Amino acid sequence: VFLAVPSQQLRETLAAVEPHLEPGSVLVSLVKGVERTTTMRMSEVMADALDLGPERIAVVSGPNIALEIAKEQPTAAVASCESLEVAQEIAIACSTPYFRSYVNTDVVGTELGGVLKNLIALAIGIVDGVGYGENTKAAIITRGLAEMTEFAVSQGADPTTLAGLAGLGDLIATCQSPLSRNNTAGRLIGQGFSLDETKQQMQQTAEGITSVSPVLELARERGITMPIVEQVQMVLQGRMLPKDLGPHLATEDDVPQPELSMTNGELGRIRRLFERLRGTRS
Amino acid sequence: VFLAVPSQQLRETLAAVEPHLEPGSVLVSLVKGVERTTTMRMSEVMADALDLGPERIAVVSGPNIALEIAKEQPTAAVASCESLEVAQEIAIACSTPYFRSYVNTDVVGTELGGVLKNLIALAIGIVDGVGYGENTKAAIITRGLAEMTEFAVSQGADPTTLAGLAGLGDLIATCQSPLSRNNTAGRLIGQGFSLDETKQQMQQTAEGITSVSPVLELARERGITMPIVEQVQMVLQGRMLPKDLGPHLATEDDVPQPELSMTNGELGRIRRLFERLRGTRS
Repeated sequence: VFLAVPSQQLRETLAAVEPHLEPGSVLVSLVKGVERTTTMRMSEVMADALDLGPERIAVVSGPNIALEIAKEQPTAAVASCESLEVAQEIAIACSTPYFRSYVNTDVVGTELGGVLKNLIALAIGIVDGVGYGENTKAAIITRGLAEMTEFAVSQGADPTTLAGLAGLGDLIATCQSPLSRNNTAGRLIGQGFSLDETKQQMQQTAEGITSVSPVLELARERGITMPIVEQVQMVLQGRMLPKDLGPHLATEDDVPQPELSMTNGELGRIRRLFERLRGTRS
Repeated sequence: VFLAVPSQQLRETLAAVEPHLEPGSVLVSLVKGVERTTTMRMSEVMADALDLGPERIAVVSGPNIALEIAKEQPTAAVASCESLEVAQEIAIACSTPYFRSYVNTDVVGTELGGVLKNLIALAIGIVDGVGYGENTKAAIITRGLAEMTEFAVSQGADPTTLAGLAGLGDLIATCQSPLSRNNTAGRLIGQGFSLDETKQQMQQTAEGITSVSPVLELARERGITMPIVEQVQMVLQGRMLPKDLGPHLATEDDVPQPELSMTNGELGRIRRLFERLRGTRS
């Protein structure tokens, strides 16, 4: 059973669907969002509402703009379930010559990629609306992926999932697509419309606007700073001008810094591990 | 001294500049390419031609489309030198309120990011010329960054450099900019023009076309497979139709695969290390 509904309506949809579920059937979420009242991911809502085991809950995500898939353009996605066998069954069901599905067992990372990219897409829409070009957007996507990865890992995700199709891939497609609702909402705000005016102009929900506050709440609980998402919230709340959104320019320090917040010792350890994996160092 | 010349002319430029160099002056390369005859990176050409120590050779790279910087749009870059002090001096020289420079000491990774992104930009241009949309391009960028990282690490680069502004950042800006020469060259080829016709139409060099063969040579020496770059070469040589370029769809196997070529054991080790770094596991 594939579920594609707005995130805030998933719980009631599940209640309506429950009587019709066959025993052992797998529920596959295509929904990218967080439940506002509980800050639960969609797979968590599914487990909570229906009391299903993890082998009956799956997620499909990736750079999958519907209109382009309908045109049979080459597309790739990820099917994710804690059970690798179930993920493979779903991937086989979701495969055509022009649509390739990969698999993983990292439901948390796969799902959070789809949630978090909407927040960065809002930022991209905002600077696009202001009139900034590819340099600004590339810097925001690069730093945005780092923010997404740090947040997702704090929730138990595998960092490699965020570097893949459900993270970076979906982020790029969403940020580049003029059809993305989050991108469009950001662009209207960047052009000077207020949040209320933007919501009125748009007929459909922009999931990202709904997710900003719950994500920042969870980030604060874990002691993680997300400068881009925080600036998006400030712009949405009218506390920052869209043209000032540029987290990669913000610094309290005159001495040029390394790009990552990790210390050099930690970077060195990652590098040495990578070298061992590649067999270039014993 | 800042050097911005086509990669194949760097050596002769250095010879012309040498008599005028002050002792102790630092040479900063802004050039993104590989010398065809030697497969040397630009910093290697500098060391080879002038016999300079590593503390006098530096590189500045990142998502830095010149026209947008001239418009004073928010931009970030990386200054790289084996000497952190020198990198910081250069970063300070390359900083304005709208242009922020970060630093690192990974010259190899910083430089290879700028070389390798041109090859992926060719692929993006090709599928763009065919008429494919954001799903296809996002999958190629995602898989392309993985190829770039694996190649760069085999040459001694730090993988985190490729995940930053000089890798992912520059890749995204180049792939999105209609002004990029590599993107434009790929688009003409994707539209059905031959390599010779494309070279005639373009007045300027597309560095990526020059780099394809040397990079694939080096990759073969290290036993690394680069499916996207190999497909680009096949298209350039007329051995593959542009519409068939879709490395993320190629598979010899009917069973859905994980995204990365690494085994699960290796992924698990990276994840556990990351968790230790984050303090979530002892």
